[in-house]
Amino acid sequence: MGERTDRVVVVGAGVVGTTAAWVAARDHAAREVVLVDPDPGSGASWVAGGMLAPITEAWPGERELLELGAASLARWPAFAAAVEQASGRPVGLRTAGTLAVVVDAADREDLDRVIEHLRAWGRDAERLTGREARRREPALGPAVRAGLAVPDDLAVDNRLLLAALRAAAERAGVVVRTEPVVRVTESDGAVSGVDLASGKRLDAGRVVVAAGAWSASLHPSLDGLVRPVKGEILRVRARAGSLPPPTRTVRAAVAGRAVYAVPRDGGRLVLGATQYETGFDADVTVGGVRDLLADTERVLPGIADYALEESAASFRPGTADNLPVLGAVPGTPDGLLACFGHGRNGILLTALTADVVAALLTGRPMPDGSAAASASRLATLEVSS
Amino acid sequence: MGERTDRVVVVGAGVVGTTAAWVAARDHAAREVVLVDPDPGSGASWVAGGMLAPITEAWPGERELLELGAASLARWPAFAAAVEQASGRPVGLRTAGTLAVVVDAADREDLDRVIEHLRAWGRDAERLTGREARRREPALGPAVRAGLAVPDDLAVDNRLLLAALRAAAERAGVVVRTEPVVRVTESDGAVSGVDLASGKRLDAGRVVVAAGAWSASLHPSLDGLVRPVKGEILRVRARAGSLPPPTRTVRAAVAGRAVYAVPRDGGRLVLGATQYETGFDADVTVGGVRDLLADTERVLPGIADYALEESAASFRPGTADNLPVLGAVPGTPDGLLACFGHGRNGILLTALTADVVAALLTGRPMPDGSAAASASRLATLEVSS
Repeated sequence: MGERTDRVVVVGAGVVGTTAAWVAARDHAAREVVLVDPDPGSGASWVAGGMLAPITEAWPGERELLELGAASLARWPAFAAAVEQASGRPVGLRTAGTLAVVVDAADREDLDRVIEHLRAWGRDAERLTGREARRREPALGPAVRAGLAVPDDLAVDNRLLLAALRAAAERAGVVVRTEPVVRVTESDGAVSGVDLASGKRLDAGRVVVAAGAWSASLHPSLDGLVRPVKGEILRVRARAGSLPPPTRTVRAAVAGRAVYAVPRDGGRLVLGATQYETGFDADVTVGGVRDLLADTERVLPGIADYALEESAASFRPGTADNLPVLGAVPGTPDGLLACFGHGRNGILLTALTADVVAALLTGRPMPDGSAAASASRLATLEVSS
Repeated sequence: MGERTDRVVVVGAGVVGTTAAWVAARDHAAREVVLVDPDPGSGASWVAGGMLAPITEAWPGERELLELGAASLARWPAFAAAVEQASGRPVGLRTAGTLAVVVDAADREDLDRVIEHLRAWGRDAERLTGREARRREPALGPAVRAGLAVPDDLAVDNRLLLAALRAAAERAGVVVRTEPVVRVTESDGAVSGVDLASGKRLDAGRVVVAAGAWSASLHPSLDGLVRPVKGEILRVRARAGSLPPPTRTVRAAVAGRAVYAVPRDGGRLVLGATQYETGFDADVTVGGVRDLLADTERVLPGIADYALEESAASFRPGTADNLPVLGAVPGTPDGLLACFGHGRNGILLTALTADVVAALLTGRPMPDGSAAASASRLATLEVSS
């Protein structure tokens, strides 16, 4: 055991890890909270759309993920307010809702399935013709044949959120160290700290592993639990004379590919997202950019005149059952808390994850709706390859 | 008149201005040569393909530009060797030639016209079927219907060239000042120097205006002589497992748009170029990127898997007759030497421009083949709006 067993080390300063560190310090879960990341706020949290839209985001059959997402969405307004209050910074929460649209006749029935989902959750949704959809969002093009307005969905500016979480964490006393963690160390069946790339060791009584797709390499017991699922996004900006961007998040399926456009301030849109299972290869590909532009243009033709400001790729942390892994993974040392595997839902699930981490670190009961993400399920789950 | 009338100031540190400054210092044309640019080596010289391919580049009917290009191409091998020797740095000259290809049947006759041009210049060219073209460049896709091999064309790495020219200039004694020039000043009908944005004045007996598209604002007598013609380029890179890039410069007309792919070291290609008359608007547009990718992919389908490393825009200096303006513009103060308006041929025409500048500054006779670029023609030329 290290000297300072009352220290909590959080590995990974994306939205999940920074939230975990902030919550740990805020709730006095430890004498000292250290957040370690070689490049805080980069990674999948930086390369994200920021949609808080669990139902239009859910794949068919992902009922448990949908429940987690709905539970987290319900927490988001209060979470956003708490982060803004604690940091004194905005997170850019948007409440204009989502408009899901289809351009192929064959996709129209998908909308009906989404409506069923929404009604099962007691949530509002309205079926629109193409013309009705264009009346609400004049940026939609003539190819749009039908739509679905989901007024309760939210969106957040992931980059503002990262900055606000970092400020909130530091105000609460979190110490940020910008260096790589090599491994979680253990002694007598319990975590003893982390080894840093510099050769130093940071003693800790509890280690929260929140390193997203990079988490699996930090301790042998985590091996295979999470894998990188590459995604590319583009950021575009309306120019003088351009057709204004939509005010709602627009989602569509074009040629079988899901595409979204999430509004940001300043006439900007985040377009996403591709999906590849190609390991830690961070290249933005020609084909990915071509598809994102072509698919989005089909739905929002005015973007042809927009400025292309940025293209970026990162790695969603994917798990075998597409659910996050939160808590003590069976077979890991005492004091090692997993907090990874949020897949393409990291921003959405952060509000719920905050409450889970608070419960794990303080011994309070786990929050409602979080059971599906419990690491205890891994006793029976087959790990991914 | 300023104190130091033996000083030459060159405004603009792109390939043309840096070459002019180097030549001025090398040939002892002045006691001191100062090269002034707020951001040396940026601008159109940075955002370029580096093709040295006058004939496949020439638009129909641009006979004088073609002659200038041919005269400059002939000088390029010696110019490249001189720059490399003077700087101790490579310029990345490539001698693999150009392959011009067509994908639409209607464009085949364009190739015949280019062949006529080439033969009139005594230059080699070979008509190829699509299959023959693919045999030489396996990266070419099945859409390619015919081709034309131009073995004598060259290409240069514009960014290596910029670095080498800068080094050559500094070794020859050129002083580089990184600040904006506001205007060329005059006194009694002769230039007296330049006013800098800092409020300082730099005295000079001769001022070479080589600020590309920005040149027109530097003295009232230059107003309207040059305008910005925006161009966008992309840089892509073959990845592990990608189809290798072509070894030759590949040019094509796709859907009426000219596109080129110029090889660079490291499996890279520079793709270009769009063309817009929209003033000094440096945005890279979604539509521009979409067209460049789609058109290039039509010809080189393997790039879909390449990494998209960079997108950039800058401003070619366009003139009313598409020819550069070199020398004393009628009506300007004595000692003001224009050296701008190279349009989309700045890199190609640099070798000839070097000799023109040397002649202008030392009083030697103008080089053969340069007459069409003489600023003296502007006595009769209508200026562009």
